[in-house]
This record gives sequence, structure tokens and C-alpha cells, in this order.
Amino acid sequence: MIDDVIELAKALINRRSVTPEDAGCQTLMADILAPLGFNIETLVFEDTTNMWARKGNQGPVFCFAGHTDVVPTGPEEQWQFPPFEATEHDGMLYGRGAADMKGSLAAMLVATHHFVTKHPDHKGSIAFLITSDEEGPFINGTTRVIDTLEARDEKITWCVVGEPSSTATVGDIVKNGRRGSLTGDVTFKGIQGHVAYPHLAENPVHLTAPAISELATEVWDEGNAYFPPTSFQISNVHAGTGAGNVIPGEMAMCFNFRYSTEVTNQALIDRVTHIFDKHKLKYDIKWTFNGLPFLTDEGQLVEATKRAISSVTGNEPVLSTAGGTSDGRFIAPTGAEVIELGPVNATIHKIDECVNMGDLNKLALMYERILENLLT
Amino acid sequence: MIDDVIELAKALINRRSVTPEDAGCQTLMADILAPLGFNIETLVFEDTTNMWARKGNQGPVFCFAGHTDVVPTGPEEQWQFPPFEATEHDGMLYGRGAADMKGSLAAMLVATHHFVTKHPDHKGSIAFLITSDEEGPFINGTTRVIDTLEARDEKITWCVVGEPSSTATVGDIVKNGRRGSLTGDVTFKGIQGHVAYPHLAENPVHLTAPAISELATEVWDEGNAYFPPTSFQISNVHAGTGAGNVIPGEMAMCFNFRYSTEVTNQALIDRVTHIFDKHKLKYDIKWTFNGLPFLTDEGQLVEATKRAISSVTGNEPVLSTAGGTSDGRFIAPTGAEVIELGPVNATIHKIDECVNMGDLNKLALMYERILENLLT
Repeated sequence: MIDDVIELAKALINRRSVTPEDAGCQTLMADILAPLGFNIETLVFEDTTNMWARKGNQGPVFCFAGHTDVVPTGPEEQWQFPPFEATEHDGMLYGRGAADMKGSLAAMLVATHHFVTKHPDHKGSIAFLITSDEEGPFINGTTRVIDTLEARDEKITWCVVGEPSSTATVGDIVKNGRRGSLTGDVTFKGIQGHVAYPHLAENPVHLTAPAISELATEVWDEGNAYFPPTSFQISNVHAGTGAGNVIPGEMAMCFNFRYSTEVTNQALIDRVTHIFDKHKLKYDIKWTFNGLPFLTDEGQLVEATKRAISSVTGNEPVLSTAGGTSDGRFIAPTGAEVIELGPVNATIHKIDECVNMGDLNKLALMYERILENLLT
Repeated sequence: MIDDVIELAKALINRRSVTPEDAGCQTLMADILAPLGFNIETLVFEDTTNMWARKGNQGPVFCFAGHTDVVPTGPEEQWQFPPFEATEHDGMLYGRGAADMKGSLAAMLVATHHFVTKHPDHKGSIAFLITSDEEGPFINGTTRVIDTLEARDEKITWCVVGEPSSTATVGDIVKNGRRGSLTGDVTFKGIQGHVAYPHLAENPVHLTAPAISELATEVWDEGNAYFPPTSFQISNVHAGTGAGNVIPGEMAMCFNFRYSTEVTNQALIDRVTHIFDKHKLKYDIKWTFNGLPFLTDEGQLVEATKRAISSVTGNEPVLSTAGGTSDGRFIAPTGAEVIELGPVNATIHKIDECVNMGDLNKLALMYERILENLLT
């Protein structure tokens, strides 16, 4: 099995590791890595199981990062095949986590097995940073493993995260950064009253409309070569008692920035505050920092990855920073170069999640070539 | 008791007639009116009890209009005195309905008793139009009694509604009309999506903000001598899944116009539609007509009322069309002159509703003088 990406992926998918459960996935991985010379550390924080596995004591340190947890299945009866009984059908492997990201974990294991067997005296170190808390609140996962490593001054030089980065065919897109994410929860204050007596009330829906209009059309930045322009989106808004004759006393609103490296958290906060204050709004606001943006510029890791992909597919990947956040945001701030390379993300988090089996084999080869490009 | 406003008010308050219950109030009234020569008709529609009582077959027809139902008490333990055990305290009469409007009903009965006793050969007719569905959905109350009267071509010439019109002392304000009320329930259509991919979504909160801003600042009219300017208020707005990373696909909004006789229902609908369309919004809208505006210009009824009040208090009342809707809106369209005169409205619909007992006695005298001014 150690040589077979598909069999390994199936073995992982069949473990019902709904976040934050690991369900034995990391033990399965450790049982493959330990005989290859990896030192296994299991780091349990609260409900989360993490694994830091390392082969070698020297730098540079190449690290595969990923997660064994998966999102819930939704209604299981709507699945074509049982979500935790991996099933091959028409060239695809079906099951929860097939694409996000147990297929990638299997490819990492096979790539590492091949590479270490062929190059027992490779340079530097190889590591695995695996968590069971990527799909959950990401409090006790990668971020705490990184804290542990930082505390003992153990550094990652290059990191490949197995997130499903591809859109049409494996390796067409490599993520070399991610936008930052900043959330605001605001309650605007008005004065409740009867609609028949508007002069005694202050309607927060009316008072906030010009500010919302301004926020919605504001150009926050132009983006840059790697990042699309920063975007602002209101996700929730609520005001009113339900009764048709009452002017609401408050309006609650939640909004989110996905932002580039051209702005900072603080600059966005200042600009939003300025717009609220300019419109003389009364409000309470709570800001939540979901992750700083990060960018891995063209360098050794990006170069090694591009060459690896070209050698497998004949095509150069496109670099992108679009899409949601990933655990790369916790690793990049340590100074590591971080990219994300994984299978096509079309079905992730959906009913009938699946992955192309040919792609998984190609992915294992890409990972192996990256190791060769960097550690031989 | 037939001569004592306070005792009559207590007897009515002690009947637990939470809308649409009448709880025997109309029987109590009928038992007083029948011996005075009134013909009593009880009109039951669905859950609502109505009474049309008339003395005389000739025109002009003077009508007292009112309701026996009351709004719920709220938490009874918060009341200083039990809401359905009328209690005198410090010159005030406490109980649910004391001000809205069982006190007025008692004053009407005593005024009628006195007037009929003194003027057995008065001109025209005296009538009572009483419902138990004024505080509820007003479907089976006054509007259906009016339908019944219209069907047999029975007309009201002058109508005094006993709604609590006064603000500081009884008779300081007479309502000689009411604004119209028009409600819109609109659902704006966008395209749901992930906040990380805003180019694939259309955020209805963003798209509607300029239109809401315009609606909130629009001058709908300037009002006129009797009406304040038409007002627009948004009462409810809701968008979002609750999740912070989802762009909502829809936004629901409810708004209400209180409008003067300077505009029409249709003009308001056209102007709102024009603003929505100008901003290229996609939406479904449902309009609800809650009542046309009505106005009773200076004429016989207003004149008789002013003189009656002056003779009791020494002061002229102020005419006003402010405040919420009342059943007057159903009576005025038949061609009747309609005014509202009742006690101070400071405590209506609240815990510890109460009415000044001296005011109730003055109100009975005002009602009697109006009868004298019009029917002798």
C-alpha cells in the first residue's frame, strides 16, 4: 500500500475524521513515515490532534503541511456513494476528503517514500506538519504547532500545503499567497419609535444607507502583481422588530474584507471608522482578525514547484493568491516560503466530493520532483 | 349607575375584553341604550362582536363610534393594580382600557342619557357603532358594519370617535383626520456566493444602499394645513445566512408610508418603483393598503365640537391629523364628517393604563354639548 496513492487515499477517506476528529489518520501516516526515518511527535491540544514528523536534523527544512479533518457530509442519503467508503467510479475516487485533502496526504506519503528510497542521503530535512483542526476554528491546530516550533527555534525553510489549488487540471494553479481576512461586527444605534411619530425616533436603516453606499463603492486598493484588489462585502444585516409599524432602534451588520498586501488591517479599520464617523453614525464595533495576508515571491520554492509541474504536465502553472484562507497564513509569518499545490477543487465541501485518480498520481510525482529540485 | 361615568367605566374595564373578545361590554351598553329608545342590532362576524344601535329614523344621523376590545395587558404582575379590576387612586382610574377607550364609552352613554332625557324630541337620530376588533386585524369590525349600512343605504352624517385624542388635558386636541398608511414588503434579488469570490456574486445589501439612501431623504410632499408631510420609514431589513463568509442572495425589507391628502397611494407606489428601477434593482414587492387618508374640514361637526369643548374647558382645541390610524378611516369614506375626541393618551397600551376621572366627567359633558349643538 505504501507505494499506491489511491489505496492510501482510500484508507484515509474511510476514517470518519469529521473536524476536529483525526480518527487514526495520523497514526496511519506515522506508521509509514517512522520506518523511513522520521521522528514522530504527536501534539494534542484540547480536541485537536497534530503531528510534527521530521527526518533529519539539518537545514534547509522542507515541510509538507496539511490536515486530516474533513467538513461534515451534509445529508448522507444524497451521496451517490457512502462518504466514508471510498469508491472508484469512472476514473474518479469518491468520498469526503478525497480532494480536501486526504488525496494530497496520500500523494505526499508516496512522494516521500519514493524520494527517500532513491535519495537516502538527501540534503537538509523533510517534515510533515499535520493537524485535525483546519476545517474548524483553527485555534488548536497549525497555529499551536508553529508556536511550539518557534519556541524551540525550529524553522521551516520551504512549505508545500496540500490544499486543492487547481481549477481544471492538477497543477494548473499554484497559490503563492493568500489574501488577509478581517471581519467587522457592528451595531448601529438609533432610537426606536412608532412609524406614525418619526420625529421622536432615529431610524438606523435610513442613517446608515449613505455610509453603506460609500463602503460598497470604495476602492480600497488596486491590488498588485500577485493580489486582486481588496474586496469589501457585507454578509449580514438585520434591523426591526418584525412589526410593520415600529422604527427599529438598532441595526446589526457584519462585513468582511479580503485584502491584499497593499493595505494593512489597521488602515482598513481607520478608513471604515472614518466613513462611519463622517456620516455621524453611533455604533459599537468588534473587529476580528482572521489572518494576515502572505506572499511567497518568486524564489527557490516557487521555481522548484514550477519546474516540477512542467516536468509532469508539460505546462507552467499560474500563480494566484485568490480564494479563501488556508493554514499557510500561520506558517508564512515564521519566514518560511509557502505555496499551496493540490488537486482540482471543484467538489470540495460538497455532496459527492471526488478527485481524479490520474491527477492524484501526477500530484505524487510533482511532490517528488519538488523534493528532488530542492533537496538533491 | 346610568348617571355615573366612573361607575360605568369601571363596569366596562372589569370585563376582560382582550381583542377580539367583547366579554359582555356591548350587552351592558345595550341595556342602557334600549330603555332610551335605541334599536339594538348585534352584528357578529367571525370572532368579532359589533353593535349598531340607533334611536330615531330621520336624518341627520349623529353617531358615537368606538370599541370595547383592549390590547393585552403585558406582564400582569408589573401592574400597580390588577388590569381588570378598575381601581381609583389619587384622582386617576386605573385599568386596561381606562383611556383606550372604555372611559370614552362610559362618557358617551352618560352624555346620551342626559341629552335624551332633557331633549326627548331632538332632531334626527343618535347612533352607536361599537366593535370588538379595533385593536386586532380590523377585518370583521367597523369596516363590515359600514358595509352593512352602505348596503341598505343607511348613512352617518356626523361621527365622533372616542379615541384618546388628547395629550395634556382632555379636549386640548381634536383629530379631524388621519394620514393614510401604505406598506411595502420587498425582496431584493442578488446572487449568493462566497465572500472570497465576490466577482461570482451580487450583493443585494450593496446594490440597494443608494436606493435606500434616496428613499430616506426624498421629500414626498410638504403636507398641508391639516397634514404633516408624508413620511417614509423602513421598519425591517434582513439579509444574510448568519455565516460571516457568505454574500447574501436576497435582502428582505419592509417599509411604511404615513401620507397626507397631498399624494395618493398610486403616486407613492410609482415613485418608489421609479427609484428602484433607476438603480436597476431586481425585486418582488407586495403592497398593502392599510387605509386611505381622510380629512374632515371645518364644518358643522368641527364647529359644534369646538364650541362644546370651549364651553367646558374655556379653551379652543387644536385640530390635528397626527398619530396612528383609527376606525375613522372606514367611516369617513361614506361621506360622514368624522372627528376623534377622547381622553389623554399618555398611558394607552402601556402597563398601568389610567385616565383622569375629572377628565372623564368633562368628556361626558363635551359629548352632551356636541349633541345639543347638532341635534337641538
